[in-house]
Amino acid sequence: MEDLHHTCTWGTGKKWGRQAIFTGMTRLALSDDDKRARDWFVQTTRNLGCDVTVDSMGNTFAVRPGRRDGPPTCAGSHLDTQPTGGRYDGILGIHAGVEMLKVFEDNHVQTEYPVGVVNWTNEEGARFPISMVSSGVWAGEIPIERAHNLQEVGGGTATMKSELERIGYLGSVPASYQSIPIAAHFELHIEQGPILEAERRKIGVVKGVQAYRWYTIDVTGRDAHTGTTPFSSRADALLLAARLITRSHDVAVKHSALGSTGILTLSPGSVNTIPGHVRFSLDIRAPADSTVETVEAELKNAFASLASQNSKLSVEWQTDTTSPAVNFHPDCIAAVRASAESVTGSADLVRDMVSGAGHDSVYTSRRCPTSMIFVPCRNGVSHNPEEYTSPEDCAIGAEVLMQSVLRYDRL
Amino acid sequence: MEDLHHTCTWGTGKKWGRQAIFTGMTRLALSDDDKRARDWFVQTTRNLGCDVTVDSMGNTFAVRPGRRDGPPTCAGSHLDTQPTGGRYDGILGIHAGVEMLKVFEDNHVQTEYPVGVVNWTNEEGARFPISMVSSGVWAGEIPIERAHNLQEVGGGTATMKSELERIGYLGSVPASYQSIPIAAHFELHIEQGPILEAERRKIGVVKGVQAYRWYTIDVTGRDAHTGTTPFSSRADALLLAARLITRSHDVAVKHSALGSTGILTLSPGSVNTIPGHVRFSLDIRAPADSTVETVEAELKNAFASLASQNSKLSVEWQTDTTSPAVNFHPDCIAAVRASAESVTGSADLVRDMVSGAGHDSVYTSRRCPTSMIFVPCRNGVSHNPEEYTSPEDCAIGAEVLMQSVLRYDRL
Ligand SMILES: NC(=O)NCCC(=O)O
Ligand SMILES: NC(=O)NCCC(=O)O
Repeated sequence: MEDLHHTCTWGTGKKWGRQAIFTGMTRLALSDDDKRARDWFVQTTRNLGCDVTVDSMGNTFAVRPGRRDGPPTCAGSHLDTQPTGGRYDGILGIHAGVEMLKVFEDNHVQTEYPVGVVNWTNEEGARFPISMVSSGVWAGEIPIERAHNLQEVGGGTATMKSELERIGYLGSVPASYQSIPIAAHFELHIEQGPILEAERRKIGVVKGVQAYRWYTIDVTGRDAHTGTTPFSSRADALLLAARLITRSHDVAVKHSALGSTGILTLSPGSVNTIPGHVRFSLDIRAPADSTVETVEAELKNAFASLASQNSKLSVEWQTDTTSPAVNFHPDCIAAVRASAESVTGSADLVRDMVSGAGHDSVYTSRRCPTSMIFVPCRNGVSHNPEEYTSPEDCAIGAEVLMQSVLRYDRL
Repeated sequence: MEDLHHTCTWGTGKKWGRQAIFTGMTRLALSDDDKRARDWFVQTTRNLGCDVTVDSMGNTFAVRPGRRDGPPTCAGSHLDTQPTGGRYDGILGIHAGVEMLKVFEDNHVQTEYPVGVVNWTNEEGARFPISMVSSGVWAGEIPIERAHNLQEVGGGTATMKSELERIGYLGSVPASYQSIPIAAHFELHIEQGPILEAERRKIGVVKGVQAYRWYTIDVTGRDAHTGTTPFSSRADALLLAARLITRSHDVAVKHSALGSTGILTLSPGSVNTIPGHVRFSLDIRAPADSTVETVEAELKNAFASLASQNSKLSVEWQTDTTSPAVNFHPDCIAAVRASAESVTGSADLVRDMVSGAGHDSVYTSRRCPTSMIFVPCRNGVSHNPEEYTSPEDCAIGAEVLMQSVLRYDRL
C-alpha cells in the first residue's frame, strides 16, 4: 500500500476526504505523470532482478527468470487512469504484481519457469480512444498503425506514437504475442461494481467478460431560434437525443442488458438556439453477444421510428468498438479458485463472476490461458475519485494473485 | 442590399448555397469583424451628415439634425450575430436605417426633429451572455458594472469592457437614456418565425414581445463505470437530464408555451463513465408572464419529483434572465400599421403580431415609445446560416421603417 500511494503522487486528482490518500487520480496514458509511474515500475522491477522489455506500444514486461527457460506466467494490468479516476483501477493489479516479485526475492522463491509483471499501455482508452488498445496490438487484433496513429481526444494533435516517443517508451521490440510470448495472464482488479460488497465476499473468480459495443450516434436537425420557432416548425436535435437516450435505457432494462451514454456534444450551443446537431456515445453490454445484438437491432428500429416523426430530423449510427463475450481458460479459473479458497479459508467468501468491464485480459485470453481476480470496492464505485478498496482487501487480492501465478507455474 | 452584403464580408460564416451571398455570419460582439462593421457604420453615417456618439457600452447613435432641436426619432437594431447566425437578424434593421438616412440626404428631406440610427452592442448575448445587455444598460435596467464585467463564454478571459477598449468603442458618454435621450424607437427585424410566410403577408406590426425566462439547471449524480454498475446502483445525471428535457417540452406543449434547451455540458465525458454532473440551459416563453410562471412552477415540481426517484440524484435551478411581457406604444404601433398599409397597398398583407424573441426594443420601450416591424424570413429559419429574406421583402420593410419614423416625427 505504501508503494501504491507513493506512485499515486504522480497524477493525484480530486481530494474527497480527510486523509492524504483520499484523492482520485488523473493519470492519462503517456502523460508526464504516466512516464514517472512507468520509470518507477522499470526501476523497481530491475532492482528485483527482472529483465525489462518495452515493446512498440510501450507495453512493459518485467520478467524474473525461473529454473527453466520459457514464456513467463504473468500478472498484468495498467498504470493509466480515467480523467477523474481512482487509485485502484489497474494500479492495484500492477502493484500486487510487483509485491509478488518482492515476496519471491525476499523468500528466495525459485519458480519452474519465468514469471513476470506486465504494464499495458492506455488500457482506459480515455486519452487515446480505444480501450485496451495495446494488449489488442500485442494479441494481433488491432493493427499497430491504427494504434500508433490514434489521436488524443479533445482536439489535441498528439498521437500515441508521438507521445510514446516523447516520453521515451517507444520500444524497438514489436508489440506481438509472437515476439513476446507469455504462458498465462492473471489480472487482479477491483470489481468496479457492487456485487462482492453486497454479498460480503472477498474474491470474485472471473470466468469471463460480458460482451459490449460502443457506438457514436449523430442526430441532425436544424438550428433555429428558441423564441420564434413554434414546436411544429422545429427539428430539435437535442430533444430527439433526449428521447433516444431515455429509450436506450428502457430497451436495455427490458433485456437485462446495460445501456449508457457518457459523452454528449451539441452545436451551436447557444441558450436561444435550438441545437441542429447532437452527437452522443452509446455503450451497450450484456453477458451474451446475442443480447447485445438484439438490443442494438431494437434500438436501431426505435431510433429510426422516433426520428421519422419529423422529416427534418435524422439519426446515424457508427460502431466504434465490438468486444465479444469472453470465456477465460479453465486452468486459470481453477488456479484462481483454489488460491482464493486457500487464502480466504472459506468457499463462502468466494464467488464466480462475469466481468462487466473489458480488461487487457480480454485480449491476452486470445493468445494465452487467462483469468482474473476481483476484489470488492466500496459502494461499487469506480471511474470516480472516490474509488476505494481497503488495505485488507487489497492484500487478500494480492495473495490470491501470487498463489494463482505459482499454481499455474507448477502446472 | 449591396451595402448589407458588403459589410457581411466581415464575419462571413458557413456557405450553404451557390451564390456568393449564400453564407451565414459569425460576427460575435466586439470581435475584430464587429469592429470593421462598426467602423463602416460610423464612417457612412458621418458622410451622410450625422453626429455620431459612442456611449460607455459601445452603443453608437448616428443622429441627423432636424428643423428643431430635441431628442431624435430613431431606427435601431444590432450588427452582432450568433456564432452560426445569418445575414439579416439585426443587420437588416441597421442597414434599413442607414438607407433611410441616404434617402433623406438624396431627397433633401428635412424632418421636424432630429432622426437617427442606433447600433446596440451585443444584442445576441452569444459572446457576452446577457442578450440586449447594452440597451438594458441604456434603459437603466442593467448596472453598467455588471455589463462591463461580463466575461465571454467558452472560458476566455475577455470582458465586455476589455473588448470595448481593445476595439476602440468604449465611449466616454454614459450609456443612459438620461445622457442620450431618444424620442421614439422603431426596429425593423426579420420575423425569425414562420407565420408571415405561411400566411403570405409582407409586414408584421409588432404590438409587443412575449415573456421569457432563462435558467441554468444543474443535475448532480455520481460518476460510475458503465460496464460494472447495475442500473439499481446508478445515479446517472445524463439519463435524468434527458428525462427533464423531455418533460420540459411536454409541459410547455400543455400550456401552449415554448420550452427549449440550447446548451448542455457534462462531466467527466468518457464513453465508459456515467456522467456525474450535467448542466443545461432552459428557455421558457409565452405571451403572458403568468404562463411562464406556471410552466416554471410545474417544472420545478416535476424535476424534483423525477430526481427524487433516486436519492443520489439532485437538481438545482438558477434564474439567469427574466424578461417580462412587453406592450409597445400605441402611437408607434399606429405609425407602423399606417405605414405598412400604405407601402403594401393592402391591409391583407399586414398583420398584428407578438414577437417571440427579445429585441433591443424591449428595453427602449421602458424609456420611449417603441414598436417593431417584422418581415418574413424563409421557412421561418433564424439563428442559422441559411436565414434568408428576399431583397423585395427587405425593401418593403425598409420603406415601412422610413415611413414610420417620418410619421412619428410629424406627430
Ligand atoms: N476496466 C475498464 O474500465 N476497462 C475499459 C473498457 C471498458 O469500459 O470495459
Ligand atoms: N432576436 C433575438 O435573437 N434576441 C435575443 C433574445 C432572445 O432570445 O429573444
